[in-house]
Amino acid sequence: MNSDPQTLAEQIIAGQRRALSRAITLVESTRAEHRRQAVELLRLLAPAAGRSIRIGISGVPGVGKSTFIEALGNRVVALGHRLAVLAVDPSSSLSGGSIMGDKTRMETLSRQSDAFIRPSPAGSTLGGVARRTRETMLLCEAAGFDVVFVETVGVGQSETAVADMTDMFLLLLLPAGGDDLQGIKRGIMELADMVLINKADGDLVATARHSAADYRSALTLVHPRTRGWKVPVQICSAVEGQGLAEVWQSIERFRAVIGGNGELEGRRAAQARSWMWSEISEGLLAEFRHDRRIEPRLDGMERDVVAGRLPPTLAAGELLRLFLHGD
Amino acid sequence: MNSDPQTLAEQIIAGQRRALSRAITLVESTRAEHRRQAVELLRLLAPAAGRSIRIGISGVPGVGKSTFIEALGNRVVALGHRLAVLAVDPSSSLSGGSIMGDKTRMETLSRQSDAFIRPSPAGSTLGGVARRTRETMLLCEAAGFDVVFVETVGVGQSETAVADMTDMFLLLLLPAGGDDLQGIKRGIMELADMVLINKADGDLVATARHSAADYRSALTLVHPRTRGWKVPVQICSAVEGQGLAEVWQSIERFRAVIGGNGELEGRRAAQARSWMWSEISEGLLAEFRHDRRIEPRLDGMERDVVAGRLPPTLAAGELLRLFLHGD
Repeated sequence: MNSDPQTLAEQIIAGQRRALSRAITLVESTRAEHRRQAVELLRLLAPAAGRSIRIGISGVPGVGKSTFIEALGNRVVALGHRLAVLAVDPSSSLSGGSIMGDKTRMETLSRQSDAFIRPSPAGSTLGGVARRTRETMLLCEAAGFDVVFVETVGVGQSETAVADMTDMFLLLLLPAGGDDLQGIKRGIMELADMVLINKADGDLVATARHSAADYRSALTLVHPRTRGWKVPVQICSAVEGQGLAEVWQSIERFRAVIGGNGELEGRRAAQARSWMWSEISEGLLAEFRHDRRIEPRLDGMERDVVAGRLPPTLAAGELLRLFLHGD
Repeated sequence: MNSDPQTLAEQIIAGQRRALSRAITLVESTRAEHRRQAVELLRLLAPAAGRSIRIGISGVPGVGKSTFIEALGNRVVALGHRLAVLAVDPSSSLSGGSIMGDKTRMETLSRQSDAFIRPSPAGSTLGGVARRTRETMLLCEAAGFDVVFVETVGVGQSETAVADMTDMFLLLLLPAGGDDLQGIKRGIMELADMVLINKADGDLVATARHSAADYRSALTLVHPRTRGWKVPVQICSAVEGQGLAEVWQSIERFRAVIGGNGELEGRRAAQARSWMWSEISEGLLAEFRHDRRIEPRLDGMERDVVAGRLPPTLAAGELLRLFLHGD
């Protein structure tokens, strides 16, 4: 593929869709040569990026995430925005599939010329998947997309990773009462800038309102994630299109608040710093794990540590000396 | 000081208190020679360690942590246990002091021959403080202490670090209603294996019961941290000694549950693995930060990244190449 970074950068900024797709394929490639070109491309596009609102969207399976994203997405596009929908799904490499591989899930949205849907990159580590999604987000912003949704399936730490790369974090929940609510993973509640009870339609409207009340009181027990922002708990029905206007209003209100009180600037700075340092730690640990002197000894040592035969400090010390000083 | 590891190890296992103190001073020293002796000592003592229940204790300032620890501690000692009280307080290096430097805070407990109280090691990084506390815990276990309390002031991530090195995590709270409860940091609630409303005495008993009810319902919204364990929310008064017997009963019940269903084994394995890997990442990042080629360039690059002038991937890539391959 033609991936002369300079040309590609110009085509992307000119809004050529195929160039954007090629660029994403480039950043997702692990080949050293592609990696070099990707890094150069990101350098060229950096000045044109960053002008979107980045929205993380998470929720338990069955909550209707893709229906919600499609319904809200169509509305956002109708308002004149250009929308990119990305995803972080570390499991996609294992499952072979991806939460958004099946485009028919978002048929109407994917037909929109102002919408760009990209499935999660495959990858064995969350760090790797997160990195490529961060880079893809940058490419999409440079291509003029001013709203970015980052969907996550909520495997383990992926919500935290997504919250780390977005300006606002939406948590979708099902209408349900009391113990049924235990499906939420630890700490996720605290990441939310907005909580949405979806599927508030038919017989479930009353239950949804009840759940909303429960979550409102539960949220009084935790610090709001964002200074100057009281986490709203709203109900909606993606299927019937109910409450979506209010959802977008809240998103715009949030954008205005964090834009006004310096939180956005601060969050973007934090996003960049945490991105740089996760690249560095990931890189160091990857080099370490695959070092020819370390690799053959790692499993055995870890087994001894886990079995309590070897103090962790000792194991780490030996391995570090071996890696850093070769003895 | 005499710190021939072999001799020291024998004296510690023989239960000589002064040897234990000398050993702790040794593991807290950063001098390379002391570090070598400490690591050797830990290697010698590892087989004798691990036979305690490790209990993390956290709570907002003013909740009465030390009064609680002293009251529960005296009770535990009276039951024939040997108790070590440690602490993780990364701020102690800054404040110059330490949450447990002032022994008079636990006067009656510190006079007990079966109790050993050690203030938090000083240290600029949480990682460093956590490491020394982990090592001290191992020394105390080898010295025959079968109950270990690890207190934390709850600065930023320190609760997570303490939860990472203990079998059970206790969260102390004040009797208070609604919005007054917002003092809890994000995610802490989810670490708790037991929630205690302290200061449930005098006029506050009713409020305490009310808070307990609030937290019970709030807890139905999150996954219990420990398989097979429903997080109890209890009220107590450390000052009046009310409810402490029930607290210890819950701790013993918890111990029995996780001992029976394999959770304890699993948690200890996880503790050891996470300890080893945090040693490795800490070590790698420390080497990286202080590398003579990296150090002079780090600030400038981080500034450019945060200001959006330089893509994080690019900055990280350049620094990693410089560190790993010297170009």
